[in-house]
Amino acid sequence: MAAPRTLSEPEIAAGLATLPGWTLRNGKLHKTFQFADFVEAFGFMTRVALAAEAMGHHPEWFNVWNTVTVDLVTHESNGITERDLMLARKMEALAG
Amino acid sequence: MAAPRTLSEPEIAAGLATLPGWTLRNGKLHKTFQFADFVEAFGFMTRVALAAEAMGHHPEWFNVWNTVTVDLVTHESNGITERDLMLARKMEALAG
Amino acid sequence: MAAPRTLSEPEIAAGLATLPGWTLRNGKLHKTFQFADFVEAFGFMTRVALAAEAMGHHPEWFNVWNTVTVDLVTHESNGITERDLMLARKMEALAG
Amino acid sequence: MAAPRTLSEPEIAAGLATLPGWTLRNGKLHKTFQFADFVEAFGFMTRVALAAEAMGHHPEWFNVWNTVTVDLVTHESNGITERDLMLARKMEALAG
Repeated sequence: MAAPRTLSEPEIAAGLATLPGWTLRNGKLHKTFQFADFVEAFGFMTRVALAAEAMGHHPEWFNVWNTVTVDLVTHESNGITERDLMLARKMEALAG
Repeated sequence: MAAPRTLSEPEIAAGLATLPGWTLRNGKLHKTFQFADFVEAFGFMTRVALAAEAMGHHPEWFNVWNTVTVDLVTHESNGITERDLMLARKMEALAG
Repeated sequence: MAAPRTLSEPEIAAGLATLPGWTLRNGKLHKTFQFADFVEAFGFMTRVALAAEAMGHHPEWFNVWNTVTVDLVTHESNGITERDLMLARKMEALAG
Repeated sequence: MAAPRTLSEPEIAAGLATLPGWTLRNGKLHKTFQFADFVEAFGFMTRVALAAEAMGHHPEWFNVWNTVTVDLVTHESNGITERDLMLARKMEALAG
Protein backbone atom coordinates (compact mmCIF):
# COMPACT_ATOMS: atom_id res chain seq x y z
CA MET A 1 0.00 0.00 0.00
CA ALA A 2 1.45 3.34 -1.01
CA ALA A 3 1.94 5.96 1.69
CA PRO A 4 -1.01 8.38 1.56
CA ARG A 5 -0.27 11.91 0.40
CA THR A 6 0.25 14.63 2.98
CA LEU A 7 -2.43 17.27 3.31
CA SER A 8 -1.82 20.92 2.45
CA GLU A 9 -2.07 23.61 5.13
CA PRO A 10 -5.54 24.69 3.93
CA GLU A 11 -6.73 21.07 3.95
CA ILE A 12 -5.46 20.62 7.51
CA ALA A 13 -7.06 23.89 8.59
CA ALA A 14 -10.37 22.85 7.04
CA GLY A 15 -10.19 19.52 8.85
CA LEU A 16 -9.36 21.11 12.20
CA ALA A 17 -12.30 23.52 11.82
CA THR A 18 -14.65 20.60 12.37
CA LEU A 19 -12.69 19.03 15.26
CA PRO A 20 -13.33 20.87 18.55
CA GLY A 21 -10.26 21.16 20.78
CA TRP A 22 -7.83 19.84 18.19
CA THR A 23 -4.85 21.99 17.16
CA LEU A 24 -1.80 21.68 14.96
CA ARG A 25 1.29 21.24 17.15
CA ASN A 26 4.77 20.23 16.05
CA GLY A 27 3.37 19.06 12.73
CA LYS A 28 0.80 16.75 14.33
CA LEU A 29 -2.91 16.86 15.13
CA HIS A 30 -3.01 17.40 18.89
CA LYS A 31 -5.64 17.19 21.62
CA THR A 32 -5.83 16.59 25.36
CA PHE A 33 -8.85 14.63 26.58
CA GLN A 34 -9.95 14.75 30.23
CA PHE A 35 -12.09 12.08 31.90
CA ALA A 36 -13.60 11.54 35.34
CA ASP A 37 -10.92 9.11 36.43
CA PHE A 38 -8.48 6.43 35.24
CA VAL A 39 -11.22 3.88 34.56
CA GLU A 40 -12.97 6.24 32.14
CA ALA A 41 -9.68 7.33 30.55
CA PHE A 42 -8.50 3.77 29.95
CA GLY A 43 -11.94 2.74 28.74
CA PHE A 44 -11.64 5.47 26.09
CA MET A 45 -8.15 4.27 25.18
CA THR A 46 -9.44 0.73 24.71
CA ARG A 47 -12.26 1.86 22.42
CA VAL A 48 -9.77 3.91 20.40
CA ALA A 49 -7.27 1.02 20.34
CA LEU A 50 -9.91 -1.26 18.79
CA ALA A 51 -10.80 1.34 16.16
CA ALA A 52 -7.15 2.17 15.45
CA GLU A 53 -6.14 -1.46 14.98
CA ALA A 54 -9.07 -1.94 12.58
CA MET A 55 -7.99 1.17 10.62
CA GLY A 56 -4.36 0.11 10.62
CA HIS A 57 -3.51 3.59 11.86
CA HIS A 58 -2.41 4.22 15.44
CA PRO A 59 -2.03 7.27 17.66
CA GLU A 60 0.90 8.60 19.61
CA TRP A 61 -0.64 9.06 23.02
CA PHE A 62 0.28 9.81 26.59
CA ASN A 63 -1.81 8.96 29.64
CA VAL A 64 -1.60 9.89 33.26
CA TRP A 65 -4.57 9.18 35.53
CA ASN A 66 -7.62 10.85 33.92
CA THR A 67 -5.83 12.59 31.05
CA VAL A 68 -5.09 11.31 27.55
CA THR A 69 -2.94 13.48 25.27
CA VAL A 70 -2.94 12.55 21.61
CA ASP A 71 -0.70 13.40 18.65
CA LEU A 72 -1.62 12.14 15.21
CA VAL A 73 0.71 11.98 12.24
CA THR A 74 1.30 9.52 9.40
CA HIS A 75 4.87 8.35 9.89
CA GLU A 76 5.27 6.68 6.49
CA SER A 77 4.12 9.88 4.76
CA ASN A 78 6.20 12.11 7.03
CA GLY A 79 3.22 14.40 7.59
CA ILE A 80 -0.49 14.70 8.28
CA THR A 81 -2.79 12.77 5.96
CA GLU A 82 -6.49 12.02 5.63
CA ARG A 83 -5.92 9.02 7.92
CA ASP A 84 -5.09 11.35 10.80
CA LEU A 85 -8.28 13.34 10.27
CA MET A 86 -10.24 10.07 10.17
CA LEU A 87 -8.70 8.88 13.43
CA ALA A 88 -9.30 12.26 15.08
CA ARG A 89 -12.96 12.15 14.04
CA LYS A 90 -13.22 8.60 15.33
CA MET A 91 -11.73 9.65 18.67
CA GLU A 92 -14.27 12.47 18.95
CA ALA A 93 -17.09 10.00 18.37
CA LEU A 94 -15.63 7.53 20.91
CA ALA A 95 -14.99 10.17 23.57
CA GLY A 96 -18.60 11.34 23.50
CA MET B 1 -10.52 -12.75 54.65
CA ALA B 2 -13.69 -14.58 55.67
CA ALA B 3 -16.27 -15.30 52.98
CA PRO B 4 -18.99 -12.63 53.18
CA ARG B 5 -22.40 -13.78 54.39
CA THR B 6 -25.08 -14.55 51.83
CA LEU B 7 -28.02 -12.18 51.58
CA SER B 8 -31.56 -13.19 52.49
CA GLU B 9 -34.30 -13.22 49.85
CA PRO B 10 -35.75 -9.92 51.12
CA GLU B 11 -32.29 -8.32 51.08
CA ILE B 12 -31.75 -9.48 47.48
CA ALA B 13 -35.20 -8.23 46.49
CA ALA B 14 -34.50 -4.85 48.08
CA GLY B 15 -31.21 -4.64 46.23
CA LEU B 16 -32.75 -5.58 42.88
CA ALA B 17 -35.47 -2.95 43.35
CA THR B 18 -32.83 -0.26 42.79
CA LEU B 19 -31.11 -1.99 39.86
CA PRO B 20 -33.06 -1.50 36.61
CA GLY B 21 -33.04 -4.55 34.33
CA TRP B 22 -31.42 -6.89 36.86
CA THR B 23 -33.20 -10.08 37.86
CA LEU B 24 -32.51 -13.12 39.99
CA ARG B 25 -31.75 -16.10 37.76
CA ASN B 26 -30.36 -19.48 38.78
CA GLY B 27 -29.30 -17.99 42.11
CA LYS B 28 -27.31 -15.16 40.51
CA LEU B 29 -27.86 -11.47 39.78
CA HIS B 30 -28.48 -11.37 36.04
CA LYS B 31 -28.60 -8.69 33.34
CA THR B 32 -28.07 -8.38 29.61
CA PHE B 33 -26.48 -5.13 28.40
CA GLN B 34 -26.79 -4.01 24.78
CA PHE B 35 -24.41 -1.56 23.10
CA ALA B 36 -24.09 0.05 19.68
CA ASP B 37 -21.38 -2.32 18.50
CA PHE B 38 -18.44 -4.47 19.62
CA VAL B 39 -16.20 -1.46 20.32
CA GLU B 40 -18.70 -0.03 22.81
CA ALA B 41 -19.40 -3.44 24.35
CA PHE B 42 -15.72 -4.23 24.87
CA GLY B 43 -15.05 -0.70 26.14
CA PHE B 44 -17.69 -1.35 28.82
CA MET B 45 -16.09 -4.70 29.65
CA THR B 46 -12.71 -3.02 30.08
CA ARG B 47 -14.11 -0.38 32.46
CA VAL B 48 -15.84 -3.12 34.45
CA ALA B 49 -12.69 -5.27 34.43
CA LEU B 50 -10.70 -2.42 35.99
CA ALA B 51 -13.33 -1.87 38.68
CA ALA B 52 -13.74 -5.60 39.34
CA GLU B 53 -10.00 -6.21 39.74
CA ALA B 54 -9.81 -3.29 42.18
CA MET B 55 -12.76 -4.72 44.16
CA GLY B 56 -11.29 -8.23 44.08
CA HIS B 57 -14.68 -9.44 42.87
CA HIS B 58 -15.25 -10.55 39.29
CA PRO B 59 -18.28 -11.23 37.11
CA GLU B 60 -19.30 -14.26 35.13
CA TRP B 61 -19.97 -12.72 31.75
CA PHE B 62 -20.68 -13.67 28.18
CA ASN B 63 -20.12 -11.45 25.15
CA VAL B 64 -21.09 -11.71 21.53
CA TRP B 65 -20.74 -8.65 19.30
CA ASN B 66 -22.71 -5.82 21.00
CA THR B 67 -24.20 -7.84 23.85
CA VAL B 68 -22.78 -8.48 27.32
CA THR B 69 -24.67 -10.90 29.59
CA VAL B 70 -23.68 -10.85 33.24
CA ASP B 71 -24.24 -13.23 36.17
CA LEU B 72 -23.03 -12.23 39.62
CA VAL B 73 -22.56 -14.59 42.55
CA THR B 74 -19.99 -14.92 45.33
CA HIS B 75 -18.44 -18.33 44.76
CA GLU B 76 -16.68 -18.61 48.14
CA SER B 77 -19.98 -17.86 49.91
CA ASN B 78 -21.98 -20.12 47.64
CA GLY B 79 -24.61 -17.42 47.18
CA ILE B 80 -25.32 -13.75 46.54
CA THR B 81 -23.62 -11.28 48.87
CA GLU B 82 -23.29 -7.53 49.27
CA ARG B 83 -20.28 -7.71 46.93
CA ASP B 84 -22.56 -8.75 44.07
CA LEU B 85 -24.88 -5.82 44.69
CA MET B 86 -21.85 -3.50 44.78
CA LEU B 87 -20.53 -4.85 41.47
CA ALA B 88 -24.00 -4.61 39.89
CA ARG B 89 -24.28 -0.96 40.99
CA LYS B 90 -20.81 -0.29 39.64
CA MET B 91 -21.75 -1.85 36.29
CA GLU B 92 -24.83 0.37 36.10
CA ALA B 93 -22.67 3.44 36.70
CA LEU B 94 -20.10 2.32 34.11
CA ALA B 95 -22.70 1.43 31.45
CA GLY B 96 -24.27 4.91 31.63
CA MET C 1 -19.82 -8.54 1.18
CA ALA C 2 -21.35 -11.96 0.56
CA ALA C 3 -21.54 -14.38 3.47
CA PRO C 4 -18.60 -16.80 3.26
CA ARG C 5 -19.45 -20.42 2.40
CA THR C 6 -19.70 -22.93 5.21
CA LEU C 7 -17.01 -25.55 5.48
CA SER C 8 -17.68 -29.25 4.94
CA GLU C 9 -17.18 -31.74 7.77
CA PRO C 10 -13.83 -32.94 6.34
CA GLU C 11 -12.66 -29.32 5.98
CA ILE C 12 -13.58 -28.60 9.61
CA ALA C 13 -11.88 -31.81 10.76
CA ALA C 14 -8.74 -30.88 8.83
CA GLY C 15 -8.75 -27.44 10.42
CA LEU C 16 -9.26 -28.78 13.93
CA ALA C 17 -6.38 -31.23 13.45
CA THR C 18 -3.97 -28.28 13.58
CA LEU C 19 -5.66 -26.52 16.53
CA PRO C 20 -4.73 -28.12 19.86
CA GLY C 21 -7.57 -28.24 22.38
CA TRP C 22 -10.24 -27.09 19.93
CA THR C 23 -13.29 -29.29 19.35
CA LEU C 24 -16.54 -29.12 17.42
CA ARG C 25 -19.40 -28.51 19.84
CA ASN C 26 -22.98 -27.58 19.01
CA GLY C 27 -21.89 -26.65 15.50
CA LYS C 28 -19.20 -24.23 16.69
CA LEU C 29 -15.42 -24.31 17.15
CA HIS C 30 -14.97 -24.60 20.90
CA LYS C 31 -12.10 -24.20 23.36
CA THR C 32 -11.56 -23.32 27.01
CA PHE C 33 -8.44 -21.30 27.81
CA GLN C 34 -7.01 -21.18 31.35
CA PHE C 35 -4.74 -18.41 32.62
CA ALA C 36 -2.91 -17.64 35.86
CA ASP C 37 -5.50 -15.11 37.02
CA PHE C 38 -8.04 -12.52 35.88
CA VAL C 39 -5.37 -10.03 34.78
CA GLU C 40 -3.85 -12.55 32.37
CA ALA C 41 -7.27 -13.74 31.17
CA PHE C 42 -8.50 -10.23 30.43
CA GLY C 43 -5.19 -9.30 28.84
CA PHE C 44 -5.74 -12.21 26.43
CA MET C 45 -9.29 -11.06 25.77
CA THR C 46 -8.06 -7.56 24.94
CA ARG C 47 -5.47 -8.85 22.47
CA VAL C 48 -8.13 -11.04 20.85
CA ALA C 49 -10.63 -8.17 20.81
CA LEU C 50 -8.15 -6.01 18.87
CA ALA C 51 -7.50 -8.78 16.35
CA ALA C 52 -11.20 -9.65 16.03
CA GLU C 53 -12.26 -6.05 15.41
CA ALA C 54 -9.57 -5.75 12.73
CA MET C 55 -10.80 -8.99 11.09
CA GLY C 56 -14.43 -7.91 11.35
CA HIS C 57 -15.16 -11.30 12.91
CA HIS C 58 -15.91 -11.67 16.60
CA PRO C 59 -16.07 -14.57 19.07
CA GLU C 60 -18.82 -15.75 21.36
CA TRP C 61 -16.97 -15.95 24.63
CA PHE C 62 -17.55 -16.46 28.31
CA ASN C 63 -15.19 -15.41 31.10
CA VAL C 64 -15.06 -16.07 34.78
CA TRP C 65 -11.90 -15.22 36.71
CA ASN C 66 -8.99 -17.00 34.95
CA THR C 67 -11.03 -18.95 32.39
CA VAL C 68 -12.10 -17.90 28.88
CA THR C 69 -14.45 -20.23 26.98
CA VAL C 70 -14.79 -19.55 23.27
CA ASP C 71 -17.30 -20.62 20.60
CA LEU C 72 -16.71 -19.60 17.00
CA VAL C 73 -19.32 -19.64 14.25
CA THR C 74 -20.16 -17.38 11.33
CA HIS C 75 -23.68 -16.16 12.06
CA GLU C 76 -24.40 -14.75 8.60
CA SER C 77 -23.41 -18.06 7.02
CA ASN C 78 -25.25 -20.12 9.62
CA GLY C 79 -22.23 -22.37 10.06
CA ILE C 80 -18.48 -22.63 10.41
CA THR C 81 -16.40 -20.88 7.76
CA GLU C 82 -12.76 -20.16 7.04
CA ARG C 83 -13.12 -17.00 9.15
CA ASP C 84 -13.66 -19.13 12.25
CA LEU C 85 -10.54 -21.17 11.57
CA MET C 86 -8.60 -17.93 11.06
CA LEU C 87 -9.83 -16.49 14.35
CA ALA C 88 -9.08 -19.77 16.17
CA ARG C 89 -5.53 -19.74 14.78
CA LYS C 90 -5.16 -16.10 15.81
CA MET C 91 -6.33 -16.91 19.34
CA GLU C 92 -3.76 -19.71 19.59
CA ALA C 93 -1.01 -17.30 18.56
CA LEU C 94 -2.22 -14.65 21.04
CA ALA C 95 -2.60 -17.08 23.96
CA GLY C 96 1.00 -18.30 23.64
CA MET D 1 -4.28 8.00 53.63
CA ALA D 2 -1.04 9.86 54.22
CA ALA D 3 1.29 10.37 51.28
CA PRO D 4 4.03 7.72 51.41
CA ARG D 5 7.53 8.94 52.21
CA THR D 6 9.97 9.54 49.38
CA LEU D 7 12.87 7.13 49.03
CA SER D 8 16.49 8.21 49.52
CA GLU D 9 18.97 8.04 46.66
CA PRO D 10 20.55 4.82 48.01
CA GLU D 11 17.10 3.25 48.38
CA ILE D 12 16.22 4.15 44.80
CA ALA D 13 19.58 2.82 43.58
CA ALA D 14 19.04 -0.43 45.46
CA GLY D 15 15.57 -0.78 43.93
CA LEU D 16 16.81 -0.06 40.41
CA ALA D 17 19.56 -2.66 40.80
CA THR D 18 16.90 -5.38 40.67
CA LEU D 19 14.90 -3.85 37.80
CA PRO D 20 16.55 -4.55 34.44
CA GLY D 21 16.30 -1.68 31.96
CA TRP D 22 14.92 0.81 34.46
CA THR D 23 16.76 4.08 35.06
CA LEU D 24 16.27 7.26 37.04
CA ARG D 25 15.29 10.06 34.67
CA ASN D 26 13.99 13.50 35.58
CA GLY D 27 13.26 12.28 39.08
CA LYS D 28 11.13 9.34 37.88
CA LEU D 29 11.62 5.61 37.36
CA HIS D 30 11.89 5.24 33.60
CA LYS D 31 11.77 2.37 31.11
CA THR D 32 10.91 1.81 27.45
CA PHE D 33 9.22 -1.52 26.63
CA GLN D 34 9.21 -2.90 23.08
CA PHE D 35 6.69 -5.45 21.82
CA ALA D 36 6.07 -7.30 18.57
CA ASP D 37 3.25 -4.99 17.48
CA PHE D 38 0.42 -2.77 18.70
CA VAL D 39 -1.74 -5.71 19.81
CA GLU D 40 0.98 -6.98 22.14
CA ALA D 41 1.80 -3.47 23.38
CA PHE D 42 -1.81 -2.63 24.19
CA GLY D 43 -2.34 -6.07 25.74
CA PHE D 44 0.52 -5.24 28.11
CA MET D 45 -0.99 -1.83 28.85
CA THR D 46 -4.33 -3.46 29.73
CA ARG D 47 -2.70 -5.93 32.12
CA VAL D 48 -0.80 -3.07 33.76
CA ALA D 49 -3.95 -0.91 33.88
CA LEU D 50 -5.78 -3.64 35.81
CA ALA D 51 -2.91 -4.01 38.27
CA ALA D 52 -2.45 -0.25 38.63
CA GLU D 53 -6.13 0.40 39.33
CA ALA D 54 -6.09 -2.35 41.97
CA MET D 55 -2.98 -0.77 43.57
CA GLY D 56 -4.46 2.71 43.38
CA HIS D 57 -1.20 3.83 41.79
CA HIS D 58 -0.98 4.69 38.10
CA PRO D 59 1.84 5.22 35.62
CA GLU D 60 2.66 8.09 33.34
CA TRP D 61 3.03 6.31 30.03
CA PHE D 62 3.39 7.00 26.35
CA ASN D 63 2.57 4.58 23.54
CA VAL D 64 3.19 4.58 19.85
CA TRP D 65 2.66 1.38 17.88
CA ASN D 66 4.79 -1.34 19.57
CA THR D 67 6.53 0.88 22.14
CA VAL D 68 5.43 1.78 25.67
CA THR D 69 7.51 4.33 27.58
CA VAL D 70 6.86 4.53 31.31
CA ASP D 71 7.68 7.11 34.00
CA LEU D 72 6.80 6.36 37.60
CA VAL D 73 6.58 8.91 40.38
CA THR D 74 4.29 9.45 43.36
CA HIS D 75 2.68 12.81 42.71
CA GLU D 76 1.25 13.32 46.19
CA SER D 77 4.69 12.71 47.71
CA ASN D 78 6.48 14.80 45.11
CA GLY D 79 9.05 12.05 44.61
CA ILE D 80 9.71 8.35 44.16
CA THR D 81 8.25 6.05 46.81
CA GLU D 82 7.96 2.34 47.48
CA ARG D 83 4.75 2.38 45.42
CA ASP D 84 6.75 3.21 42.31
CA LEU D 85 9.13 0.32 42.91
CA MET D 86 6.14 -1.98 43.44
CA LEU D 87 4.52 -0.86 40.18
CA ALA D 88 7.82 -1.21 38.30
CA ARG D 89 8.21 -4.78 39.64
CA LYS D 90 4.63 -5.53 38.66
CA MET D 91 5.26 -4.22 35.13
CA GLU D 92 8.31 -6.45 34.82
CA ALA D 93 6.23 -9.47 35.83
CA LEU D 94 3.43 -8.53 33.42
CA ALA D 95 5.76 -7.84 30.48
CA GLY D 96 7.34 -11.29 30.73
